[in-house]
Amino acid sequence: MTSISHVNANVLQAAQERIQQDLTTALDAFDLPEPLKSAVYHTVMLGGKRVRPALCYAVASMEKNPNYAAARRAAVAVELIHCYSLAHDDLPCMDNDLLRRGQPTCHVAFGEDTALLAGDILQSMAFEVLGSRLFDQQNSVDASIVLRQMQILATASSKMVCGQVLDLQAEGKEIDQEQLENIHRNKTGALIQAALMMGAVTLFSGMDQAIPHLRQFGQRIGLAFQVQDDILDIISSTETLGKTAGKDQQVQKSTYPALMGLDAAQNYAKNLHDQALASLDYFGDAAIELQQIVQFLLSRKS
Amino acid sequence: MTSISHVNANVLQAAQERIQQDLTTALDAFDLPEPLKSAVYHTVMLGGKRVRPALCYAVASMEKNPNYAAARRAAVAVELIHCYSLAHDDLPCMDNDLLRRGQPTCHVAFGEDTALLAGDILQSMAFEVLGSRLFDQQNSVDASIVLRQMQILATASSKMVCGQVLDLQAEGKEIDQEQLENIHRNKTGALIQAALMMGAVTLFSGMDQAIPHLRQFGQRIGLAFQVQDDILDIISSTETLGKTAGKDQQVQKSTYPALMGLDAAQNYAKNLHDQALASLDYFGDAAIELQQIVQFLLSRKS
Repeated sequence: MTSISHVNANVLQAAQERIQQDLTTALDAFDLPEPLKSAVYHTVMLGGKRVRPALCYAVASMEKNPNYAAARRAAVAVELIHCYSLAHDDLPCMDNDLLRRGQPTCHVAFGEDTALLAGDILQSMAFEVLGSRLFDQQNSVDASIVLRQMQILATASSKMVCGQVLDLQAEGKEIDQEQLENIHRNKTGALIQAALMMGAVTLFSGMDQAIPHLRQFGQRIGLAFQVQDDILDIISSTETLGKTAGKDQQVQKSTYPALMGLDAAQNYAKNLHDQALASLDYFGDAAIELQQIVQFLLSRKS
Repeated sequence: MTSISHVNANVLQAAQERIQQDLTTALDAFDLPEPLKSAVYHTVMLGGKRVRPALCYAVASMEKNPNYAAARRAAVAVELIHCYSLAHDDLPCMDNDLLRRGQPTCHVAFGEDTALLAGDILQSMAFEVLGSRLFDQQNSVDASIVLRQMQILATASSKMVCGQVLDLQAEGKEIDQEQLENIHRNKTGALIQAALMMGAVTLFSGMDQAIPHLRQFGQRIGLAFQVQDDILDIISSTETLGKTAGKDQQVQKSTYPALMGLDAAQNYAKNLHDQALASLDYFGDAAIELQQIVQFLLSRKS
């Protein structure tokens, strides 16, 4: 019998391969001047876990899906938004990070002006991809699906920025768990939720009833993801993380380990993953890919 | 008989009043944390000529238009994109401008981090507004119109960033008129074009034939606008402009007066305005508001 962690790796790996290809196809469709082009490829193609696209694919694969191309566009779009946020978060006026995924951050490699503009264009490129006919064999687009995806993605992108503001406001201050979770619901949770929902709206049937379950799953896995991130910032090395470890403590950032202690944070992460899995019960076997992604996320080392 | 300049002022003024109200309605619909909220209002509500919304309204009013609400959303969206670009262009790593519309720029008033995030969220807010039901009495949205508006706006936003990159690349270099026009076609022309096109797609009939004429008008008025901007940077005072005058020469920016001399640039601007008016002949009396906007743009002092 294949071990669970092996199966998990395969689902993630298949998603990573697909998104890597689709991102390449998408980026290659743009005609960008240098050095913007190199900065955009640098920011997008360095890898990363590609969790958001994987979640989008997993939802869109829960039943036979004639609109799967729209889910593929959404997976690219949500990853482009994520990448734009990384390029901007790393800027000197924000986190001033020098290392990302084991490589120099965008502004270190290309300068602040180009990194700013790379982030800016990645956001509009996300909406261009969403409204394009990329990956579509039939050359037809269901406008109502795209409209819903645009609403979902735009709202999540705005929330992400609000979360970033709340996070900056909280630096060096004592905040409680409710405030911390409000930050993360916006900063990382909203985009994870959006990845799921943009996949869900491509499905034909029954998703109206399913949406609340999926939304609950999204909230839990989004929060679990963040708690795990906070833990890894403490227990992992810079080498494993691919970004500067211990950074949170350095800037007196509010984190779950800081708030509740490392052991309690690890328990909390485990519980949130279990709760996320429980939210998937409604879907039965259709949720197998989502389950595997949850398993992977709990066991990840970076 | 009312003088032309008086009529012009009225068309622009009516558009400015409408957009000011609609922007307020739109911004008030968002729940933003401080200091982001103040930074966003500061960037958006200080005024400006509101040329892009005015062009969008003028096109959408060319015939009886049951989808006028979609044009109003587009007018707000295009102005939010324009405002995001201003907040980011003014940043220290870009033009490092301290004054905009007679007021401190966003980063001077709120800090670089907040100005960066204000620009970021203004971009996603633009797409949120586009996909919303704002201003809609019937509470119904034609998804295919919104999809086309999203495609137009996202493409123009990306082009704007490319134009900015080309502009930065050209600083301190000698470039010819073709290269200069390529910069401006992207940097300012694309968004002006988008304002017209997002208005056009809300119209029921005949716009397919009309589109090439409108596109030509957009190219000409977009270029005319930029040439006039370059001229005003030289002949106007900082007080009249509301931003630092003489800035272009200071940073050795390629401009039309630098390329062809001030007199020739003024002639060129006049010719472009005339050509823009000629592109409107196709529309007859329906283009009266667009004609008046052109007249106003040629006579503007800031």
